[in-house]
Amino acid sequence: MGRIAVTDGMSESAISKLEKLGHEVIVSHYEKSDLENGILSEFDAVVIRSATKISRNVLESLDSDTNRLKFIGRAGVGVDNIDIETATKMGIYVCNTPKASTQSVVELTLAHLFASVRHLARADRDLRTGIWSKKELKGTELRGKRLGLIGLGRIAKGVADISQYLGMEIHYFDPFIDKNNQYIKHQKIENLFDICTHISIHCNLTNDTEGLVNLDLINRMPKLDIDGIECGNHIVNCARGGIINEKDALIALNNGSLTSLALDVYEVEPSIGQDLLNHENFHGTPHIAASTKEAQNRIGIEMVDLIDEYFRGLKPSTTLN
Amino acid sequence: MGRIAVTDGMSESAISKLEKLGHEVIVSHYEKSDLENGILSEFDAVVIRSATKISRNVLESLDSDTNRLKFIGRAGVGVDNIDIETATKMGIYVCNTPKASTQSVVELTLAHLFASVRHLARADRDLRTGIWSKKELKGTELRGKRLGLIGLGRIAKGVADISQYLGMEIHYFDPFIDKNNQYIKHQKIENLFDICTHISIHCNLTNDTEGLVNLDLINRMPKLDIDGIECGNHIVNCARGGIINEKDALIALNNGSLTSLALDVYEVEPSIGQDLLNHENFHGTPHIAASTKEAQNRIGIEMVDLIDEYFRGLKPSTTLN
Repeated sequence: MGRIAVTDGMSESAISKLEKLGHEVIVSHYEKSDLENGILSEFDAVVIRSATKISRNVLESLDSDTNRLKFIGRAGVGVDNIDIETATKMGIYVCNTPKASTQSVVELTLAHLFASVRHLARADRDLRTGIWSKKELKGTELRGKRLGLIGLGRIAKGVADISQYLGMEIHYFDPFIDKNNQYIKHQKIENLFDICTHISIHCNLTNDTEGLVNLDLINRMPKLDIDGIECGNHIVNCARGGIINEKDALIALNNGSLTSLALDVYEVEPSIGQDLLNHENFHGTPHIAASTKEAQNRIGIEMVDLIDEYFRGLKPSTTLN
Repeated sequence: MGRIAVTDGMSESAISKLEKLGHEVIVSHYEKSDLENGILSEFDAVVIRSATKISRNVLESLDSDTNRLKFIGRAGVGVDNIDIETATKMGIYVCNTPKASTQSVVELTLAHLFASVRHLARADRDLRTGIWSKKELKGTELRGKRLGLIGLGRIAKGVADISQYLGMEIHYFDPFIDKNNQYIKHQKIENLFDICTHISIHCNLTNDTEGLVNLDLINRMPKLDIDGIECGNHIVNCARGGIINEKDALIALNNGSLTSLALDVYEVEPSIGQDLLNHENFHGTPHIAASTKEAQNRIGIEMVDLIDEYFRGLKPSTTLN
């Protein structure tokens, strides 16, 4: 069987299953310099999460004579840390585990939606410092509000489903979705921001979406709900950092056009601008949308199956190239 | 028309509506000493929230010759701050606005449920102090878990409805509910704690429920979910302080039998034990479950209707005595 590098960790049950299947598994994080010196040539497969970058340099450093690497597995969804084009040219499969973490990301998005309109983080901070800020913390309900989704993939649909059941009105912008569904489609992203007081981001990070949510769009948001209640404007991003322009978002928080901003992902992780971090109405988590026991278990199981497919000579079922 | 005291605030639209109906409205918070010196004798009606206590002393201090007070309106739900027995003897109506804040309390309960299993408050605290605690903040999903509800009134049913849709299995203990419903009823509260990893409190504070949730019950909780995943034990209380024994809850947080505790209400407000406040896995809000613009608007509208009923010689529709 094969030699497999696991560079950003994987569930123990998955590792032990791979070993039972006869593979040699090396769990070790490699520095950029090692990766760019062709260290992955010694492995048949590598399993990464988001911390390891498989750049063109990394791929082109693979030893042309002895390289064994033919499988890059992303334990998770986003593959913006892998140069798929170069991998394809070199005949290396790139696959991810797209379904395993869906529910966890849906639930963290809902957590941020529910928590940010009720000031949960500030409430907890104030209490701990002896401040009973009940009077300052009047919130608003989610029911009856318009939720605008950027992207309507698996995760967004999960969020839409629960939010609609709760009584929100669901709008979306997704140029790649033509199918009929029960939600309200907008052809232009501007129209989504014109009508929605609550926005949640669920698209990939691409050249088209980098910096997509900027001050121009935020300034279009209506602040008033369907009944004329001033619920303010709220944005959640549990997708990828960089889709929101953080500098613009901070300006909007400061001038009041944005009422709350809840982020799980950032332009540069883990370095976040201190002015944003210090803002009263910023709500942050450190890229933990898929960090649940359930998701990590499912990711491990799915990755073992993909590796097994590869070693049995099949094209792994979630191959992206 | 009448003279009405509003001692803990009310929405401006409700106050202006009362004035348009011809009433004189005095918005003023009174100290305990004033209340116990019969100051309410000068009013036909008083509208309170939770901060004003209408004790037996307050009621017995009403001037037996000149007293006009015949209506106590609680803008909200809980009436544990009103001596209803004495009010009844004195022929004073006590009414509340039971439906107006339901959705807001349901949503805050869900906010705490979603947030506490994903460590939202700690995540935000850590980020603000420059700590990227991604690795320490592995959470668990709500879907598939057993949620135990203490009490199955209006609010609990709202929580149950959404949570079941999300994929939780709903259990409850409520000796006052005999009706059939789609949830799993337990005759003994011990059985609820034996099976549920997530508990949410939705009963009144009475002699029977004071200190009800104690170390014995918490120690029964299973920590493992249906699939054997160690999701830990989680308790939310957005009902009334004192139903959970806070000293016991702190012991349970410290010894690990309780994984998270999310409280909106406390034994003594606003004084909360510093050890509890300092605990990493405590999640607090300062009694804001009904503090939304929507709930306060609806409470105001409902209270105006009740006062109007009273002045038209009717028994107000939500009279509790």
